[in-house]
Amino acid sequence: MTEAEAREALARLRVEIDAVDLRLLELLNDRTRIVERIGSIKQAVSLPIYEPNRENDVFRNVMDNNPGPLPSEAVKRVFERIIDEMRVVQRLRMEKKD
Amino acid sequence: MTEAEAREALARLRVEIDAVDLRLLELLNDRTRIVERIGSIKQAVSLPIYEPNRENDVFRNVMDNNPGPLPSEAVKRVFERIIDEMRVVQRLRMEKKD
Repeated sequence: MTEAEAREALARLRVEIDAVDLRLLELLNDRTRIVERIGSIKQAVSLPIYEPNRENDVFRNVMDNNPGPLPSEAVKRVFERIIDEMRVVQRLRMEKKD
Repeated sequence: MTEAEAREALARLRVEIDAVDLRLLELLNDRTRIVERIGSIKQAVSLPIYEPNRENDVFRNVMDNNPGPLPSEAVKRVFERIIDEMRVVQRLRMEKKD
């Protein structure tokens, strides 16, 4: 493979990555909307926002169903970040309502 | 809304979250496969693995196209984690080949 061929192949793969990232972004926003609905319901009936058992279920769901190549420990760390960011959104939303 | 109704609604929304998470997982693995192909090509023609300008493009792509409700700063932090985990995968893969 020449360097010119390599650069062309890399450019194509980057277009693919950007497309995957926009789909990831869409799903992250879908997930945030569902989390917001969960927050509203919990607030309406005064249930606690933070439920550690549910978080473990979330990790188990993705780790048990992971075919790779991304290692399950890496998957877990990505979902920890996702859950953490959505918890911040929920907290800000509730503070606004109080 | 009664507490029983709330719990039922929450259970339904959690099924939705689990489904979104499995689609996120699939895309994360798709993305990892593309990153692995990029790594192989770079290695074949001795291009550097780490390209900070390309990372900025990745952040710009998702932040500029983010309609919310997840704030763009949160999106950026999630993608920092994703990129970081995939860099680890790539590094391990190259060490194995050396």
